[in-house]
Amino acid sequence: MTQPETVGSHHAAAPHNLLRSALDLARDALLLSNPNPRVGCVLSEASGKVIGSGHTQQAGGPHAEVMALRHARMEGFNTRGCTAFVTLEPCSHHGRTPPCCDALIEAGVARVVIATLDPNPLVAGKGVERLRATGMDVEVLPADSPEAVQARELNIGFFSRMVRGTPWVRLKSAMSLDGTTALNNGASQWITGEAARTDGHAWRARACAVLTGIGTVREDDPMLDVRLVETPRQPHLVIVDSRLETLPTARLFGKTTPQRRIFIYCAVDNAERRAALEARGAVVVHMPGTPTTTESKVDLAAMLSDLGRREVNELHVEAGHGLHGSLIREGLVDEFLVYLAPQLLGPGKGMANLAPLSQLQDGVQLAFGPVSQVGNDLRIPARVAGRDAFLRA
Amino acid sequence: MTQPETVGSHHAAAPHNLLRSALDLARDALLLSNPNPRVGCVLSEASGKVIGSGHTQQAGGPHAEVMALRHARMEGFNTRGCTAFVTLEPCSHHGRTPPCCDALIEAGVARVVIATLDPNPLVAGKGVERLRATGMDVEVLPADSPEAVQARELNIGFFSRMVRGTPWVRLKSAMSLDGTTALNNGASQWITGEAARTDGHAWRARACAVLTGIGTVREDDPMLDVRLVETPRQPHLVIVDSRLETLPTARLFGKTTPQRRIFIYCAVDNAERRAALEARGAVVVHMPGTPTTTESKVDLAAMLSDLGRREVNELHVEAGHGLHGSLIREGLVDEFLVYLAPQLLGPGKGMANLAPLSQLQDGVQLAFGPVSQVGNDLRIPARVAGRDAFLRA
Repeated sequence: MTQPETVGSHHAAAPHNLLRSALDLARDALLLSNPNPRVGCVLSEASGKVIGSGHTQQAGGPHAEVMALRHARMEGFNTRGCTAFVTLEPCSHHGRTPPCCDALIEAGVARVVIATLDPNPLVAGKGVERLRATGMDVEVLPADSPEAVQARELNIGFFSRMVRGTPWVRLKSAMSLDGTTALNNGASQWITGEAARTDGHAWRARACAVLTGIGTVREDDPMLDVRLVETPRQPHLVIVDSRLETLPTARLFGKTTPQRRIFIYCAVDNAERRAALEARGAVVVHMPGTPTTTESKVDLAAMLSDLGRREVNELHVEAGHGLHGSLIREGLVDEFLVYLAPQLLGPGKGMANLAPLSQLQDGVQLAFGPVSQVGNDLRIPARVAGRDAFLRA
Repeated sequence: MTQPETVGSHHAAAPHNLLRSALDLARDALLLSNPNPRVGCVLSEASGKVIGSGHTQQAGGPHAEVMALRHARMEGFNTRGCTAFVTLEPCSHHGRTPPCCDALIEAGVARVVIATLDPNPLVAGKGVERLRATGMDVEVLPADSPEAVQARELNIGFFSRMVRGTPWVRLKSAMSLDGTTALNNGASQWITGEAARTDGHAWRARACAVLTGIGTVREDDPMLDVRLVETPRQPHLVIVDSRLETLPTARLFGKTTPQRRIFIYCAVDNAERRAALEARGAVVVHMPGTPTTTESKVDLAAMLSDLGRREVNELHVEAGHGLHGSLIREGLVDEFLVYLAPQLLGPGKGMANLAPLSQLQDGVQLAFGPVSQVGNDLRIPARVAGRDAFLRA
């Protein structure tokens, strides 16, 4: 997006400090605000004194700006004439809550410093315009300033959905140093240690939905909810189940709540089985492939668009070799989260069922992110090269 | 080893500073001193003023202590009454050069601070005893002090050879994130980038010898020398060639020098082929397996003992899937140096030909070392769990 105006260098020091505080607040909303973006807001007097702060609450709850204004008032401060530092352009439209622009205007805020614009190109700048129309002094950081980059990176799923219409798809895989994710007899629990499995739950927790396949559901009868870390909300669960074979007795239905839905995508519908699954609270979506692909298999790209419409920002994939391969071959995975265990396991299943290549340059090109040691294992993030370009557009 | 006496805490600050300088000097000998250990020495006056420093030279050349004493004299300093900080116990025996203990005694050194003792349990402490017998004040750091640990770690191959009688075996492998080291059609050049390949040559350069198999020699006709980094010496080359099939026309013979020998280990000898290879400068060693293993295959464990006798400290393995598998299955690999490329390559050959397991706990257990990004690739060191115990004994 283009940034309509940038902060002058003589303003740089103070705004950056308070925007960094606002970013820290935004990070506190990591597990909470889905599908809303993680946004933080700090209010200060002209002297630089902080009078209020807050971050986006759960969906339907107040946004960061409203939380910060409430906080200031609760502490007995007058918000008139203050400056608001906010990590994302305030919304100017009525969503689940009234527009934040209105709240800022009503509170008499004199100046707003924004880390980055609204990701939706059709909306970007509208909030800034609306505030400026009231005479407010509005500044937007340069798109490549660290705070702007971090504000977008923190909301990679929200930006993906707003710009591309589909979730940011992150595939998690646990493997030995020699690339084995399961022995030939299927044994895979556990290749990585407890710390890595706990870390994996933290990544599930930040996603709007976890995706798996019918193979994993049948073989492991998993819950696929978040248990090993505290979380204020559970991600939805999405099952790719082309022939609608999920059993209504599967353990995963034990965790259905209005906030944690089970979406089952099938290609071959069946009224009886659908009814039984719906009776367990599942949402069954018929999404067959096209005649040019395979009608008896779920159209995975269409499924991602459907999940985008259902407000899924980050989609966390934990499936088997087969579904991983289908998603990768169709170019639908954006990022890999590989937990590498310090062992050699020899022959077995690898991360994904891919087609053999005849030349090295035909491989899927990635870029590594920062590697961390988690317990005795390594966590290696890797993005499909260029796939996060929308964050820098 | 047991440390006979440790530095008192009131001495701790200064010795550690100058021992750290001595360690830096020892690191400068990384590519130079093989098969001698990498040792550094700093001489200081009682005031703490440094009057000389040096590190071990090439084999047959002076050791660190002698270099430091020469340096001090060349600068016009009197070494009488000075303190020597040395990273390894000075030798008390006549090897390729006279004992360093004698040089220190002759120079009138009053005090010696030693990071760690000689690794050979039969020799450890003998140098200290000899110096003390002349009335010299000799201090040895506690075995777990950082400088002692680093001095041993820097010489892991020398310690391995002295304590175990065999080299420290480091297996290098370059693979995609999904564990593929070559496509099904054999394509493997190049999976990693130029920076990683250069880094790989630096690891070759620090080894006493590079080991490969006849399969790699036949398929790639490689040189396996050090080209991408500057080095004062070339490692030897070892070929596992059970049926003595290396061709005298192989490119690798182009790089034979008295300092860079080609050792060919075979299980099935052949006078004619042996003569042709020896005419090219190769050393052919007949080392068949035992009747309880396979007589027609090289006895790899015996080969490592033989390489130990030939003063190989670090053995750098770059071979194919088959030989890697044999070495790992026989428990002969101590450390893995994995270069992980940011790509997915799908099916192909993995790092090593291992037997399928029926339970996860039967895998080869490792411990990761510090991961580095090298160009776009990752370098992941991993040691077989507990295999470096001799460094801490």
